[in-house]
Amino acid sequence: MSPSYAGEILGRFVAESRWEDMAPVLRQEAKRSILNNLGCGLGVAKDPAVLTALAVMRNFSGAPVATVIGQGVKLDPMAASFVNAIACNLLDYDDTHLQTVIHPTAPVAPALLALAEQRGLSGAAVLHAFLLGGEVECRIGNAVSPGHYARGWHITSTCGTFGAAAGCAKLLGLSAEQTWHAIGIAASQAAGLVENLPTAAKNVGVGNAPRNGMLAALLAEQGYKAAPAAIEGPLGFATATGDAADLTQITGELGTRWEIAKNTYKPYPAGIVFHAVIDACLALREEVGAAPEAIASVTVAGDALLLARGDRAVNNERDARVSIHHSAALGLVRGRAGVADFEMPAVVDPALAAFRGKVAAQLDDTLPRGAARVTLRLADGREFQRLVITPRGSYERPMSDAELDAKFRDNAAIGGFSDRADAAIAALWGLDDAADVTKLMTALA
Amino acid sequence: MSPSYAGEILGRFVAESRWEDMAPVLRQEAKRSILNNLGCGLGVAKDPAVLTALAVMRNFSGAPVATVIGQGVKLDPMAASFVNAIACNLLDYDDTHLQTVIHPTAPVAPALLALAEQRGLSGAAVLHAFLLGGEVECRIGNAVSPGHYARGWHITSTCGTFGAAAGCAKLLGLSAEQTWHAIGIAASQAAGLVENLPTAAKNVGVGNAPRNGMLAALLAEQGYKAAPAAIEGPLGFATATGDAADLTQITGELGTRWEIAKNTYKPYPAGIVFHAVIDACLALREEVGAAPEAIASVTVAGDALLLARGDRAVNNERDARVSIHHSAALGLVRGRAGVADFEMPAVVDPALAAFRGKVAAQLDDTLPRGAARVTLRLADGREFQRLVITPRGSYERPMSDAELDAKFRDNAAIGGFSDRADAAIAALWGLDDAADVTKLMTALA
Repeated sequence: MSPSYAGEILGRFVAESRWEDMAPVLRQEAKRSILNNLGCGLGVAKDPAVLTALAVMRNFSGAPVATVIGQGVKLDPMAASFVNAIACNLLDYDDTHLQTVIHPTAPVAPALLALAEQRGLSGAAVLHAFLLGGEVECRIGNAVSPGHYARGWHITSTCGTFGAAAGCAKLLGLSAEQTWHAIGIAASQAAGLVENLPTAAKNVGVGNAPRNGMLAALLAEQGYKAAPAAIEGPLGFATATGDAADLTQITGELGTRWEIAKNTYKPYPAGIVFHAVIDACLALREEVGAAPEAIASVTVAGDALLLARGDRAVNNERDARVSIHHSAALGLVRGRAGVADFEMPAVVDPALAAFRGKVAAQLDDTLPRGAARVTLRLADGREFQRLVITPRGSYERPMSDAELDAKFRDNAAIGGFSDRADAAIAALWGLDDAADVTKLMTALA
Repeated sequence: MSPSYAGEILGRFVAESRWEDMAPVLRQEAKRSILNNLGCGLGVAKDPAVLTALAVMRNFSGAPVATVIGQGVKLDPMAASFVNAIACNLLDYDDTHLQTVIHPTAPVAPALLALAEQRGLSGAAVLHAFLLGGEVECRIGNAVSPGHYARGWHITSTCGTFGAAAGCAKLLGLSAEQTWHAIGIAASQAAGLVENLPTAAKNVGVGNAPRNGMLAALLAEQGYKAAPAAIEGPLGFATATGDAADLTQITGELGTRWEIAKNTYKPYPAGIVFHAVIDACLALREEVGAAPEAIASVTVAGDALLLARGDRAVNNERDARVSIHHSAALGLVRGRAGVADFEMPAVVDPALAAFRGKVAAQLDDTLPRGAARVTLRLADGREFQRLVITPRGSYERPMSDAELDAKFRDNAAIGGFSDRADAAIAALWGLDDAADVTKLMTALA
């Protein structure tokens, strides 16, 4: 009998997938995803949000077998993945699956690396499990988008739980049926709210994704079961979170169309939808060459997602990273948008604060997601406009491997780990040939 | 300025509450709730679902300081509360807040007992934190009912996370603001699906409530914050899960109307809405005195909730405990509905299976929640009817303290712990005078 439930089809796909069948471009994308992600984690290793998560989790950890990035300590795999996922996603500087706005790697890779470190599994096993977990995550995300996020669900946290469960199931060698149950158990753990995004509560949702996804796989391994239609059933995940799932998004072209291969990496540590705003403002700054005082107003037009996330007051770093106004101010006033430009000194910088007041946001539903049209009016009445459809780092204009290496080194330097960067980068690119993840995790410790 | 957010008002209420102000009737209800709950946990200590949860969690536990009920082992407080909540709620034999159908104690008390055991806190502190956590849980449940459950949210798991967070916040002595944040962090962790109720995935949602609620409080203690309107905001918990919250249900008459005092305890190990069916059928059996073969058909009428939960095929124990058909069969064929009557031998008992086929369910929206009207037709054409509005164990016909003692002893006997029952019961009733929870937890170990 051919499988008919979404989880059943995914479970079979994950369990039957073979590393030998993964195309080189997929293997490369898995490494790019993890390299980019780990760099982000290193960069914020000393952030209070990460140190607090570690301080709490230390008291609730079993045998210390899994590296906590940049902390010089190990925890059990669940606790380590909680802290690492928080770090890797903290600044929204990690990767994005643009169709869903999921950050695919943070909820999935930390669980896999931690389990592999504990059990001495190979780098190829990790990369393979990552591709499958990420694929499950993004496909379920596609199936419930865009209503899921619009209703308030932090899709990285919710769908990330499924991705971690599926990836861990693969790494544990679970059967198709066990993987199906692991995915169904994940459905009862998927949580995380957009309302909480400007606060540390966001971290908890993201950290729980690998922690609870791993738990789902471990329980399924021991015989725990879930409802067959935990995703699409009348009282299942999709309906409960607000939408009937479009199941073709989950099951269509499985194994031929790879959603995780559409992953993108950020040149700026801001929400992905703000990148077009930054690019447009950087270009306008170069073109116009006007001092901030000479600029009378700036209008940023974009689709509903840009507007939904971007219209907040800027009181802290988190606000800054999801602010249309701050993004525009950075592009036009500072002419750059690096990590430091979203930290508190920048938030309270009078020049930026004053300029943010000149920026207005405007809905334009005709623009595609991720695009922005910025209109600049000078005090003398002249007007300039720049439309950016495909910002730097988008799927159409991807960062190169060399740019990802450079971003990793930058992040490592910010975190104070410059001496480790080369070893970590080398270990990462060699992961598909590594018998275990020891070399990589040692470089990250 | 007077507080205006739901979480803010709850945070202040919890932080400022004093044990001295808790009326004797409230203190007694806290003890009744916990006694009833712990007995249910003892009864299923050897159930594979509980043993599996323990086997998995053992590998992810810090210092063993918190008793796992009936297992002779300790785990860290998060891991212990995960296993204990699963056990105490496993058979749906625990308590019910009827307006929301929340099982209030399982998500909250295990977290409090575990934390108190670790930190040497008093029995009164546990009881006080339980009242406050249970109150927060049930009030948030009221605010999102009935849409929340109807849409697919397992309200015990979701609202239980809030209750555990608030209770742990009290036990940890958090400030009003920290408690507000703990409640908000809980919002990003609240999960659990009705679709999964007939499976072990249900357990994971219930176990996560105290595990994650405790985490919320511990993170808030260390400075983690949440959005002010994490419950009622436009992208917060209530909206995301499907309903605008009725905030008056959260904040009205705080400290004078106690929702947790409306807690009820079950004489039968089935879903609470099936108790009226069982009572009516037991009464009809006594009145009519007909052999099962003489009964042509049985029609059970009730409100939408009874029908929603009760129309499943009966293939296993979980199905049986939420089955109109099995409940009616037990009442009329066996004349009893004890723990054994919902286990596999009863599920596959040919006499019960055949009788279930004679039972039909019928929607009657004029009946109040928890009521059932059972119409019995004999083969000879005679018809009998029994309407039960307030079943045994309901708020209007509560189980007495002595009946709760007897239920605890029954459960202890089922689990093989008869020798411990008296000591546990004595420790429980004396909890408000106990300097710590050692005596109670030792009796439960």
